[in-house]
Formats: sequence, C-alpha cells, structure tokens
Amino acid sequence: MSDLQEIINRINDFRDARDWRQYHNPKDLAISISIEAAELLEDFQWINSENALKKNKENIQEEIADVLIYSLMLCSDLDLDVKDIVNEKLKKNAQKYPVK
Amino acid sequence: MSDLQEIINRINDFRDARDWRQYHNPKDLAISISIEAAELLEDFQWINSENALKKNKENIQEEIADVLIYSLMLCSDLDLDVKDIVNEKLKKNAQKYPVK
Amino acid sequence: MSDLQEIINRINDFRDARDWRQYHNPKDLAISISIEAAELLEDFQWINSENALKKNKENIQEEIADVLIYSLMLCSDLDLDVKDIVNEKLKKNAQKYPVK
Amino acid sequence: MSDLQEIINRINDFRDARDWRQYHNPKDLAISISIEAAELLEDFQWINSENALKKNKENIQEEIADVLIYSLMLCSDLDLDVKDIVNEKLKKNAQKYPVK
Repeated sequence: MSDLQEIINRINDFRDARDWRQYHNPKDLAISISIEAAELLEDFQWINSENALKKNKENIQEEIADVLIYSLMLCSDLDLDVKDIVNEKLKKNAQKYPVK
Repeated sequence: MSDLQEIINRINDFRDARDWRQYHNPKDLAISISIEAAELLEDFQWINSENALKKNKENIQEEIADVLIYSLMLCSDLDLDVKDIVNEKLKKNAQKYPVK
Repeated sequence: MSDLQEIINRINDFRDARDWRQYHNPKDLAISISIEAAELLEDFQWINSENALKKNKENIQEEIADVLIYSLMLCSDLDLDVKDIVNEKLKKNAQKYPVK
Repeated sequence: MSDLQEIINRINDFRDARDWRQYHNPKDLAISISIEAAELLEDFQWINSENALKKNKENIQEEIADVLIYSLMLCSDLDLDVKDIVNEKLKKNAQKYPVK
C-alpha cells in the first residue's frame, strides 16, 4: 500500500473510532482547514521566519500536521486522489506560468 | 519511491524550474496556506455542503490542491516527514480524545 | 447620530435593498470575514509591507473595507455595540499586558 | 469628537503605552486580522449559528472585537478614513450588484 493511503487510513480509523464523521461535512472541514492554517500563521506573528523557527518549531510542526489531516480527510470524503489533483493543478499552473 | 515523495519532488521541480524558492520563506508559505484555505472556504460561502459540491466541485478540488501544494513545500523546506508529523499529531490527539 | 451608527445603517440599507439578510446568518458572516481577511493578506504575499503598499494600496483599502463591512454586519445582527466590545477587550488585554 | 475617532484613539493609546507600534507593520497587522478572524470562525466550528451563539456568545464578542481592533489599527496607520473606505466599497458593490 502507498504511504499516502496508509496515512489517510490512519486518519480515517482515528475519526471512525470516535464516531466523528457525523460532524465532518465538507463545509466544516473547509472551515477547519482555515482555522488550523491560521494557528500555523500565528507561529509567525510579529517575527521573521528565522526567529519563528527558533521559537515555535514544535508547534509549527503540529499545525502543519493539523492542516494536512483535515485536507486529507476532505480528499478522502470527496473521493479525490491527492496525486491526481496535485498533478492537475501543477499542469494548470504550468500554463499560467510557463518556464521561460 | 513512495508516491508522497514523488509528489513532493514534482512540486519542488516545478518551483525550481522557475527559480521561485527565493520567495518561499516559511512565513510567506504559511501565509500562502491561509490564503488558499480561504479560497477553498469561499466555495462554501452562503451555501450548504451539498450545494457547494454541486456548484463548485471543480474549484474545490483546485483549492484543496493549492493548500496541499504549499503545505508539502513547507514540510519539504523544514525537513518534516509527512507520515511522522501526522502520526505524532494523531498520537497527541488520541491522548486528548481517548476512545471511550 | 454617531458616524459609526451612520456607517452601520448604510451597510444595512445596502443589504436590505437587495434582500440579502436571508443569507447572513452569523456563521456565514464569520466565514466571510475570514475570506476577506485572506484577500487582504494576499496583497502582502511574497513581498514586504513597503512594496505591498506601493503595489496594492488601492486593493488593500478595498479589502480592509470588506473586513469592516462584514464585521459591522455581524455586530449589528448580534446587537453588539462596537465601542462597548472594543473597550471591554482593551480592558481585558490591559490586565493580560499591564503597562510596566 | 466622533465615536469612531474616540475608539481609534483608545486603541492607539493602548499600543503606544506599551510601545507596540514597532511590531505593527501593515503586513503583520494583516496577518493578525486573519488570525483573529479564524479564532472567531472557531466559535462556529462543527455547529450551526444558533448553537454557536448559545455556547460561545462571550468569546464571539471578544473575537469580533479583536478583528475590529486590528482593522482599525491598520486604517489608522495607513491614514484611511473608515467612513470613506466603506462608502467607496459600497458604491463599487452597488455597481456590481444593482438593485433590481
């Protein structure tokens, strides 16, 4: 099994063991991604990247994990393959920003 | 090679071909994750999940991809292994929310 | 009439003339504030404050206005007096961060 | 003096008494608005507006205050008149969404 699918399965097992899917409609998952993204951003508030990494490395790691967890939940629930949607977006970006 | 590493390599090749890493300090990557998270959220503004998926499925997919792309860039730049940080966070969450 | 109440009345007249209050439940207004906050943030993506103001002054002004418009709608709908809630929060902040 | 100017003066006195303006460049103020907007949004996570107001009314009020405080700081620092920028945006919106 791919490691990506393994991670997604682990995330799904976690929420199913707690019967949490009842809350996880796509709109609230999108809300959650924004909430966690802002918690990550808070680790950089008022300071530059270098100082943020010195001061908050551990929390930065946790908040990126939270963003990824909710994003992967949403992909799983909408039947989106992470590799496919990333490749499609990179292809679209390549047309918008061709290599000179 | 794992599919996750393949995706990360593709993202890094994309930005290196355009010499974009000069802009990609961690603070601005965190900002970018928040920006894309809000663009995803906009697909659900004023409407419920069901109608959002009917109306904006294609854009939702693109915005999730954008959130993932910037998140994976940040993991790559901070030398964070996606599987490790997700597992650590799930373990921490399991202590906070034990299965009854 | 206070200028603050004048601004709020103008915002309310705008949405009532278009019968938009039907969409403006508090949760979607909170979502909208986040969306506009991110659009403001986008004016500063990759660049420092000085360059952002040179490049995007007009749009920055519009996005701050959007954040304020949705925030004042929410205050109006929840019967919150702007002066009161700001004073209360400053008082709370003063206890957390006393002047040395 | 207008009540709006009174509120802005109080906010400025607060940060000047603590010598905080050194941190308040426009980019970090924009970041702060996003952070507080997400903390407001968190009061509505997983639940509908009605239950959010029952459960979190006090915190909702504080987070709206935080969004307003940072927004008014930014207006003050960029010499933007709140009434003017709101009126301009409503005028622009009126062209985009004319009353039928």
